[in-house]
Amino acid sequence: MTDSKARRRALVLLSGGVDSTTLLAVARAEGFEPTALVFRYGQRHGIEVEHALEIARATSIEARVVELDLRSIGGSALTSDEIAVPRDRPEAEIGASGIPPTYVPARNTVFLAYALAWAEVLGIGDVYIGVNALDYSGYPDCRPEYIEAFERMANLASKASTEGGLRFTIHAPLISKTKAEIIRWGEALGVDYSRTWSCYDPLEGAGGGPAACGRCDSCLLRRKGFREAGVADPTSYAASGERK
Amino acid sequence: MTDSKARRRALVLLSGGVDSTTLLAVARAEGFEPTALVFRYGQRHGIEVEHALEIARATSIEARVVELDLRSIGGSALTSDEIAVPRDRPEAEIGASGIPPTYVPARNTVFLAYALAWAEVLGIGDVYIGVNALDYSGYPDCRPEYIEAFERMANLASKASTEGGLRFTIHAPLISKTKAEIIRWGEALGVDYSRTWSCYDPLEGAGGGPAACGRCDSCLLRRKGFREAGVADPTSYAASGERK
Repeated sequence: MTDSKARRRALVLLSGGVDSTTLLAVARAEGFEPTALVFRYGQRHGIEVEHALEIARATSIEARVVELDLRSIGGSALTSDEIAVPRDRPEAEIGASGIPPTYVPARNTVFLAYALAWAEVLGIGDVYIGVNALDYSGYPDCRPEYIEAFERMANLASKASTEGGLRFTIHAPLISKTKAEIIRWGEALGVDYSRTWSCYDPLEGAGGGPAACGRCDSCLLRRKGFREAGVADPTSYAASGERK
Repeated sequence: MTDSKARRRALVLLSGGVDSTTLLAVARAEGFEPTALVFRYGQRHGIEVEHALEIARATSIEARVVELDLRSIGGSALTSDEIAVPRDRPEAEIGASGIPPTYVPARNTVFLAYALAWAEVLGIGDVYIGVNALDYSGYPDCRPEYIEAFERMANLASKASTEGGLRFTIHAPLISKTKAEIIRWGEALGVDYSRTWSCYDPLEGAGGGPAACGRCDSCLLRRKGFREAGVADPTSYAASGERK
């Protein structure tokens, strides 16, 4: 499996977080040569794009940045400055008390629609997405029934599938894993989590650069995952977690 | 039905062509207060956006322009200068001889994904799209089974539908009509077709402005539609149809 020319290509949606970075390694382990799709969509934590691109460079993966504007649509704490990112929620509450304001309307549908366009142009039938329905924030577009419905729609949508014989398969291998299981899987595959970025609401760090807040749902799920996996979390969290 | 405050809102995908301009009138006739979504996606015939906005202004419809870049993906005569727009195809061949190079990969899926995001943020459950599976170019994402699959997926995708009780309905009232039937329907509803734009491949007109080529599939279907409807086509086609 070391000859990349013999491998089938796959598109991997890469955000630069724990899940999608593990996903990249899983796609490789499953025999694919990944091309990363990285979305700059006006997210509050635009820094994740730089992390995603650095991860792709460090692992010799081709990456394509898709520029799109979900900020003009808004409706989410991640794409509107008028909606606050929740902080310090009890771990048991995350994912159990309704869909939080960090939900971005139709985000995975928009991302997968662009992936479908790229997949068709590149002649790639396999698309990997790192959605997770267990240790997650309660987003509806992370559930198996959503992924299955998208896949079905995609195979009716395109020239490649209806005339060209290409079948689109949406791979979601993390969907029923806990964050700790994902991290242990990544560790076994040699993933370097020090390059990943999870925080929704970056603060100014001690050295002037961005630091993870340690208090948003995404930081809390990350911390819990590393703790439960028994793996050291390489993240430098802001000392106080207060905005300067 | 004249009190707009009593009407439910609907999103209407408006390109500025015959079908979507008729659609706008149909949505109104069906009792909705439309908001037009107009997509500037890097299309060869970007002029259609100006026509769409003029149609919205003239009919007092709120319009939102969605800016997105499908040109960087390419793979279509409409989004790549390296792929030619077919000309002078026999009418019987259009839609009957495979999917033509003017097919834009995943275009309707990308458009409907943005519409879903906007619909959710605006609290609108009804989305109108002017797809047509009869007098069309053979695009897979214009068929009823595709529209039904998208609607099903959309209702699994969003916070509004899974938690908020909003049901997304994709209305495609033109899907089984001929172009002539669409034009006659629009005539009955008072549509001013002189504002519409169909041509995929605009040429320089006599006055220096753009003129419809009269020879691409879209011009040919338009001409056929007006002819069969027994309605005068208000379009000024370029005299020679040759590029200057």
